[in-house]
Amino acid sequence: MAGTVEKAILDLGITLPTPAAPMANYVAFVRTGNLVTVSGQLCFGTDGKLAAKGQLGAGVSIEDGQAAARASAINLLAQLKAAVGDLDNVTRVVRLGGFINSAPGFTDGPKVMNGASDLMVEVFGELGRHARSTVGVSALPADAAVEVEGMFEVV
Amino acid sequence: MAGTVEKAILDLGITLPTPAAPMANYVAFVRTGNLVTVSGQLCFGTDGKLAAKGQLGAGVSIEDGQAAARASAINLLAQLKAAVGDLDNVTRVVRLGGFINSAPGFTDGPKVMNGASDLMVEVFGELGRHARSTVGVSALPADAAVEVEGMFEVV
Amino acid sequence: MAGTVEKAILDLGITLPTPAAPMANYVAFVRTGNLVTVSGQLCFGTDGKLAAKGQLGAGVSIEDGQAAARASAINLLAQLKAAVGDLDNVTRVVRLGGFINSAPGFTDGPKVMNGASDLMVEVFGELGRHARSTVGVSALPADAAVEVEGMFEVV
Repeated sequence: MAGTVEKAILDLGITLPTPAAPMANYVAFVRTGNLVTVSGQLCFGTDGKLAAKGQLGAGVSIEDGQAAARASAINLLAQLKAAVGDLDNVTRVVRLGGFINSAPGFTDGPKVMNGASDLMVEVFGELGRHARSTVGVSALPADAAVEVEGMFEVV
Repeated sequence: MAGTVEKAILDLGITLPTPAAPMANYVAFVRTGNLVTVSGQLCFGTDGKLAAKGQLGAGVSIEDGQAAARASAINLLAQLKAAVGDLDNVTRVVRLGGFINSAPGFTDGPKVMNGASDLMVEVFGELGRHARSTVGVSALPADAAVEVEGMFEVV
Repeated sequence: MAGTVEKAILDLGITLPTPAAPMANYVAFVRTGNLVTVSGQLCFGTDGKLAAKGQLGAGVSIEDGQAAARASAINLLAQLKAAVGDLDNVTRVVRLGGFINSAPGFTDGPKVMNGASDLMVEVFGELGRHARSTVGVSALPADAAVEVEGMFEVV
């Protein structure tokens, strides 16, 4: 039986993917005390394809970038659920770090990153409001357009 | 009545700006336990203009970059004051993350970032010494030259 | 007398360097509660030279990048030892942040970063498995190929 938060996710028409297992000597999340740190998540969709590939400001549109940020955020939620069992155990989204694959001079990183931030508030309500840093990076794994990492407070 | 730390800020001739309210689904800071995480702050001055715009290594001088890092740090302090009321409640500057808008090959990020680090020690003394990471990024929101994020320990 | 972890380091043939003292108003690590945050470490070897210089995807090979990531991780361990005395006091590697100096389009950041992740597991075993974010940045201090920052849980 899904809790309140997971019902909100279903109501948004989102099915959380099976969280990807890292294929190396790291893990998708670590809990220490009441904090869960989730590894940077690329913008893979549930179909296994990147929601957007390449650089903002060099071919990828802001709309596609926003969809990519949302995809990264969905993957964060999937990992977070694996960490805490029921997402109702999350008491606050503390921080999102948004890395936008960007050509020099691209200035709309925050618009792109809103794709991730909006999802957190749609899902968690006021508890979903988070501190965030958005920066443009020169390259990302798999040439993903967006990578988002997260820190969460949990019971 | 300002506390010791805020008196130090006044003595430096700095007036903390009204902290900028994010215009999206995120917030300027989140407190969890004794830690306050402050969102990445761009180098806007109190006049509402960027202290420096564009890339280091491609037009922006190190001196202007340092002034930009200092402006970002002032904005961090303004948000931190909003978080804790009196800056004397800050017990340690834990970490600054410095993102320097950089052309490939620019190697002087640390000199630029000292503009932020120096301010923390001028304001907080020994408690202002922090861990930090300085990296060159390909793009920043609003084409700002510098963005700085922070984590602080508070009572 | 070295503890279990430091014996593992010796068995790997690694001598921890004297940790570099920052030459500015920041410090190599800060402890708050049970968490130690270590400043971003460049890929300097014990000979004082960078293990790799320049950008991945523009001259630096993946193998050299991996060696650079390992060198950064060794420097993290040296700072961590300075923070906690005996590395057996480390109860978990919480997070590594990997910044790979990258030309646009370079997609193999994770392979490079494995140089750091693998070392953590070689040294700490299961406790060495960590959350991580790997991103490509446009520039790094001293034109280092890799910078790695870390967060550790300690007793």
